[in-house]
Amino acid sequence: MDTIYLDNSATSYPKPEPVIEAICHFMQHVGANPGRGGHSSSLSASRLILETRELIGEFFGGRSPEEVILTQNITHALNIVIKGYLNKNDHVITTKYEHNSVLRPLNRLKSEKNISYDFLPVSEEGDFDLNSLDKLKRDNTRLIIINHASNVSGVILNIKKAIDWANYNNIPIMIDTAQTAGSYKINWQELNADFIGFTGHKGFMGPAGTGGLIISNKMIEKTKPFIEGGTGSKSDLLIQPELLPDKYEAGTQNTPGIAGLNAAIKFIKQKGIESIDKKIKENYRLLHQGLAEINGINIVGPKNIDNKVSTISLTFDEHDPAEIGFTIDKNYGIMARTGLHCAPLAHKSLGTYPEGTLRLSPGYFSSREEIEKTIKTFKDIVS
Amino acid sequence: MDTIYLDNSATSYPKPEPVIEAICHFMQHVGANPGRGGHSSSLSASRLILETRELIGEFFGGRSPEEVILTQNITHALNIVIKGYLNKNDHVITTKYEHNSVLRPLNRLKSEKNISYDFLPVSEEGDFDLNSLDKLKRDNTRLIIINHASNVSGVILNIKKAIDWANYNNIPIMIDTAQTAGSYKINWQELNADFIGFTGHKGFMGPAGTGGLIISNKMIEKTKPFIEGGTGSKSDLLIQPELLPDKYEAGTQNTPGIAGLNAAIKFIKQKGIESIDKKIKENYRLLHQGLAEINGINIVGPKNIDNKVSTISLTFDEHDPAEIGFTIDKNYGIMARTGLHCAPLAHKSLGTYPEGTLRLSPGYFSSREEIEKTIKTFKDIVS
Repeated sequence: MDTIYLDNSATSYPKPEPVIEAICHFMQHVGANPGRGGHSSSLSASRLILETRELIGEFFGGRSPEEVILTQNITHALNIVIKGYLNKNDHVITTKYEHNSVLRPLNRLKSEKNISYDFLPVSEEGDFDLNSLDKLKRDNTRLIIINHASNVSGVILNIKKAIDWANYNNIPIMIDTAQTAGSYKINWQELNADFIGFTGHKGFMGPAGTGGLIISNKMIEKTKPFIEGGTGSKSDLLIQPELLPDKYEAGTQNTPGIAGLNAAIKFIKQKGIESIDKKIKENYRLLHQGLAEINGINIVGPKNIDNKVSTISLTFDEHDPAEIGFTIDKNYGIMARTGLHCAPLAHKSLGTYPEGTLRLSPGYFSSREEIEKTIKTFKDIVS
Repeated sequence: MDTIYLDNSATSYPKPEPVIEAICHFMQHVGANPGRGGHSSSLSASRLILETRELIGEFFGGRSPEEVILTQNITHALNIVIKGYLNKNDHVITTKYEHNSVLRPLNRLKSEKNISYDFLPVSEEGDFDLNSLDKLKRDNTRLIIINHASNVSGVILNIKKAIDWANYNNIPIMIDTAQTAGSYKINWQELNADFIGFTGHKGFMGPAGTGGLIISNKMIEKTKPFIEGGTGSKSDLLIQPELLPDKYEAGTQNTPGIAGLNAAIKFIKQKGIESIDKKIKENYRLLHQGLAEINGINIVGPKNIDNKVSTISLTFDEHDPAEIGFTIDKNYGIMARTGLHCAPLAHKSLGTYPEGTLRLSPGYFSSREEIEKTIKTFKDIVS
């Protein structure tokens, strides 16, 4: 049975061929540990990593490569900020659209450091009042954390408004771009945030095991290191060096993964982000439209389908999402995700807790034929 | 110019062909995010990870797969324990052979949590007195951290003695196996330690970006999670789930890397660890012997060359290690590492601080011809 992969919000698949080639090439011909030797092979690995930082910095609106911290995943990046920047008794403003990678660290600090947080009320359409922000602000508010797009409903939040408010009020802001960065045409230049978490294996179409943090220069002094250890730099120091990016990057990097991410960003640049964005949106709109016409299917989230990423969460009048997810996988080879998607509060807001939803997320490599087959399948089993 | 790779203590190179094939296969044909979907592709990824845990657990003397925590590198693993297990005012016994991945986290906690630590005096031959341990022990001693083998001199420490003492005194012990686990024939069964950190890309011959922690069941309750976030399990919980291995594994795993590590351990099993151990030691002894006969070269560390891993650190009567490292790389294509190797106190103990050493570390894929060429090169440029 041919399979149809519609779980790009979890990880994009397939990966562009050059990504796989770059990983294999690195494994076969470079292989060395960057910054852990002065020899030529180690220097090649160092150059590859520096180039990847430059590509990522350029992507996020021209940030300096030193401000690009590479981590295993965005969860690690969010933890660096939440645990390294927040101090005892600090207050945070965030939203119910956040992933557990924000909610769980916050709750840890709530019990350990007496930090507190409030949820900014965000509409299903992704917007909010500036008044609400003003009202939530306290003297000890030290961080805003806001999701760029929900991994449940796909809605894109009005982060520009939040960033402008945060900058005006001189409060640092962190954006979780797990569902946006890479494949969507976004004006990153105007998203002037102090912290931006990103993943390498979704929109960027790189391998799992890559991701990172953009940290603005002025936050470095205020943000303690998280994982400490060997950096290959200032080895005589018994404390973590303050220089960037080493302060936040201890231990051996996922160099083959970074080689893959490097190739992925070059692939995006070569195709042009406009054309990638366009193709994904065509797939997404076709699927959205087709599903919306089927009786018994409810599409969760915003009415304005243009303010969404390619993520469609469904509930069913007569069926449990998990049951449908099982059927489409087993009998039709359609791969989707069911459940809470690690974002329980988003489901509570959207009224889909505790059953969750069935989530379909077409990607750049989805074909029109696959989308049409999927719509037909849902017609057959739901209505 | 043909190159000769002698930096296996930094990362093993080349990797076995099946490792590269497994990564490419995973990227091309599986690709999904384990535990992040109920669909068949995600289940394949979950099975692969479980099997890898089983292989690692089996390797370390029959530990349960749940006790195997997978991380980006051993530095991350050591940080989990040091930062998650130690509490305010705790005391630690460790050694000067430790890597910065132990020393830097300890120093962080020294200033932040008032923990204290003492160095167990360890001889150049890797041994120590039980009396010294008894003398260092305090009422608040809560952890012993000991390196299995030095990444500077290559000496193997008498960890069996330390583990037995720790178990007898009911103090948890952590072993850093960065330089040993994988390629050496070691009786892991008798190394009954509460915490074992390991890396995937050195002795195991897997890809960079892999490693982990073995944590004994009874330590779980005492060791807080480190990185918190989505686990794909118990998504309704706003705190990190207590179940293993999820408690210590938040965020998307380096699944292609784990596929590579899986293949690497199978490669070791198939070749037989005895034969791998034998081949590495032949290369190592040949090189050691050849270098020892050259006037003007000093081999740092133990006299008993059988109590060492395949790591040979050199200083020179008439030359700086960095100068020789540069020459052998540039003119002869020999890749080695120079400097402090992220272990400054080991150099202080060995009298090689601050210049450091030139380190040669032959591996499983080194050839007799390469070793002979290397010896000849050193004869030509040093004596």
